[in-house]
Amino acid sequence: MAQKPSIPKGTRDFSPVEVSKRNYIISVMRRHFEQFGYQPIETPSFENSETLMGKYGEEGDRLIFKILNSGDYLDKVSPEELQQINYKKLTAKISEKALRYDLTVPFARYVVQHQNEIEFPFKRYQIQPVWRADRPQKGRFREFYQCDADVVGSTSLWQEVELVQLYDSVFAELGLEGVTIKINNRKVLSGIAEVIGASDKLIDFTVALDKLDKIGEDGVKKEMLEKGIAEEALAKVQPLFRFTGTIQEKFEKLSQLLTTSEEGQKGIEELRFICDNVMKLGLQKAQLDLDVTLARGLNYYTGAIFEVAAPAGVAMGSIGGGGRYDDLTGIFGLKNMSGVGISFGLDRIYLVLDELNLFPETITTATQVLFLNLGEPQAFDAMKAITFLRSKQVKAEMYPDAAKIDKQFKHAERRNIPFVVKEITGSSITLKCLRTGEQSQIDVSGILEKLT
Amino acid sequence: MAQKPSIPKGTRDFSPVEVSKRNYIISVMRRHFEQFGYQPIETPSFENSETLMGKYGEEGDRLIFKILNSGDYLDKVSPEELQQINYKKLTAKISEKALRYDLTVPFARYVVQHQNEIEFPFKRYQIQPVWRADRPQKGRFREFYQCDADVVGSTSLWQEVELVQLYDSVFAELGLEGVTIKINNRKVLSGIAEVIGASDKLIDFTVALDKLDKIGEDGVKKEMLEKGIAEEALAKVQPLFRFTGTIQEKFEKLSQLLTTSEEGQKGIEELRFICDNVMKLGLQKAQLDLDVTLARGLNYYTGAIFEVAAPAGVAMGSIGGGGRYDDLTGIFGLKNMSGVGISFGLDRIYLVLDELNLFPETITTATQVLFLNLGEPQAFDAMKAITFLRSKQVKAEMYPDAAKIDKQFKHAERRNIPFVVKEITGSSITLKCLRTGEQSQIDVSGILEKLT
Repeated sequence: MAQKPSIPKGTRDFSPVEVSKRNYIISVMRRHFEQFGYQPIETPSFENSETLMGKYGEEGDRLIFKILNSGDYLDKVSPEELQQINYKKLTAKISEKALRYDLTVPFARYVVQHQNEIEFPFKRYQIQPVWRADRPQKGRFREFYQCDADVVGSTSLWQEVELVQLYDSVFAELGLEGVTIKINNRKVLSGIAEVIGASDKLIDFTVALDKLDKIGEDGVKKEMLEKGIAEEALAKVQPLFRFTGTIQEKFEKLSQLLTTSEEGQKGIEELRFICDNVMKLGLQKAQLDLDVTLARGLNYYTGAIFEVAAPAGVAMGSIGGGGRYDDLTGIFGLKNMSGVGISFGLDRIYLVLDELNLFPETITTATQVLFLNLGEPQAFDAMKAITFLRSKQVKAEMYPDAAKIDKQFKHAERRNIPFVVKEITGSSITLKCLRTGEQSQIDVSGILEKLT
Repeated sequence: MAQKPSIPKGTRDFSPVEVSKRNYIISVMRRHFEQFGYQPIETPSFENSETLMGKYGEEGDRLIFKILNSGDYLDKVSPEELQQINYKKLTAKISEKALRYDLTVPFARYVVQHQNEIEFPFKRYQIQPVWRADRPQKGRFREFYQCDADVVGSTSLWQEVELVQLYDSVFAELGLEGVTIKINNRKVLSGIAEVIGASDKLIDFTVALDKLDKIGEDGVKKEMLEKGIAEEALAKVQPLFRFTGTIQEKFEKLSQLLTTSEEGQKGIEELRFICDNVMKLGLQKAQLDLDVTLARGLNYYTGAIFEVAAPAGVAMGSIGGGGRYDDLTGIFGLKNMSGVGISFGLDRIYLVLDELNLFPETITTATQVLFLNLGEPQAFDAMKAITFLRSKQVKAEMYPDAAKIDKQFKHAERRNIPFVVKEITGSSITLKCLRTGEQSQIDVSGILEKLT
């Protein structure tokens, strides 16, 4: 016998129940994205390598899956080149396509390529898989979905307001209570680095600050000192380590700290606009919070930075994140296109909903009624009834073979099918509810009534 | 300026309108698949190479996209091996994963891998992209979706009956009139080859017969002669070339032809069961037809063979196909699992619906009402109204910047947004219908009434 087959590490098969649950989350996101004016696009799974390479840093380049050219890919490689045994050089010769690493770079490519067909500002959403040659581990996969909503071509802060509302709407409809939408601004981080005289160490400074949750005040200070930030600077930044209170109180503290930084003040102003308007318009279920330690992908965000924390009590990192990047499409030659967007973490949202038992029972794709197969001619009567029920949107089927009745009942039980038709003669039907054991003698419209 | 970016040949970007139309077709299929008791599964985009290689013939192996191992993939290749400059041997060393080529082999792999969790007979559907390194040409892509419904673990012919009904249901809901579902049976083809004494030439015989549509009677005969089928045999097969009439008449002709072939008679019996029951249960819009020239992937089909022809008048090949294969999972070591399934050709169905103007107008994802941005404080009032409308499922948005009014109106026109809010003061709203030019003075619940 052949060896039992398997799938590559870091990838997953999804069972019917899992697909149904995932599709439920996706359909909720889709509906809200569209209510907010975001339009769906889809891009190819693989892009030309030059579209992707160099866009995610050296680490990113390494994690991009490359596709081998088809046919005799060695045809264009000289024996000398082969003998060098240099895999990086060889890759460029034998591979010209690569699997999508995220949805942002393909989106930027799409915008530039289709700029003449697009009406700006362009609000798009995209829900597709991406691939990363990361070391697989719990909760980290080599193939996973990203769900992104971005707008390009407007610097209006109303977009940020709306994106906070969008997070809130989606998580509210999913029934998630206690979600916190954290917001920060790159200019505030720059301002802090400026006032403590560490502008040249902005990245080191924010990377350390971002770890406050994990390594605590002492840990952060230690790391900052190691990176060459002065003791004196640390003293100035002290208020950030115990940055509590209401949003208004936080704004006041921050304003004091950043009095001398023009950029910092600009960041505060932007944050104020967003927070004020979000509060005045009201959120359904989520909390908005100002988190000055939030840095995320600082290298490309230029304004707002978002991150969504799962409800306290669920041990899960962020379930979403995003921000504004002022030059989204510059990498492909289209300048001055500001973009802002957010992403939803499908896998983590799934785990949170599962843990909190928040998937509605109604989302199952399972069959509602199974007709036992009693051989001919009853099988034909059953199929006639089934054909009618399906035309009325009922999920109905017949056990395909005239197997032993016990076996057929077990099949219904194992598949969690709630109703079984035990007998059918012409229009007379014996229906059994497997949950209650109750039996009734009805006709096909009686089934329809029970099931719709 | 950087060069305008592009995508790999044979791949496609999908615009918002295209995504909406594709999702409409997919959602119709999904609903009917589930009404018929098929459950969704999803498998990874790439499989271990050994799962795919050797399953699609030599040509197939060539067309499978291989993924380069990540990291230093030359590490395990000796300089001697490199110097051989043999790309086929090298591929096995530097690539261990490959992109899915169809959904059938991954399904077989899934069934074997998860056989202990699966309740048989197992009806599954799967709608995912596949990749083929085919030469791109009109209507043939390197990335395209397959939409398959298969059942494994039952030899009941009711499955075939049901699959014909499933085709009919989907195409009926899509509004497609004049679809023909053609059916044949491998055993009938074997029977014909047997009675004309050409059993050893079954493949050549059916490949030629399959071309009747394209090259006509003379062409087919010529090809058969060339392949070494005797003149005498051709005379016997003459009735097949003018195989017209009702299904009943066709069955009679076929029965006469195949009197001496046990296998042929078995094929006829199977076809009769399927056709009789389909006719008695009735089809909504499609025609069922017996087509003895239908061969398709003869090498693996063992029973029924299906193909769906687009309505006459639309120049489009088949929009679906399928059949029964008695040993679906044998390649992975699980014997005696009969499978039968059908596939829907998403791209072609899309083209047919487009050509016949059958996409409903309501499927658009477009925004219903755009609020002009008149700066503060109106912008806030607008966002307040929009927040309310969205909570009532209306697709509403505000132009993000306080740009010139003309520009904002043009934006609405270019995006085909039917309604524009020109002014808003507190609760008083001036709504303009861009189609009729009509203006009305209403409040936000007035908009709600107009738009839902």
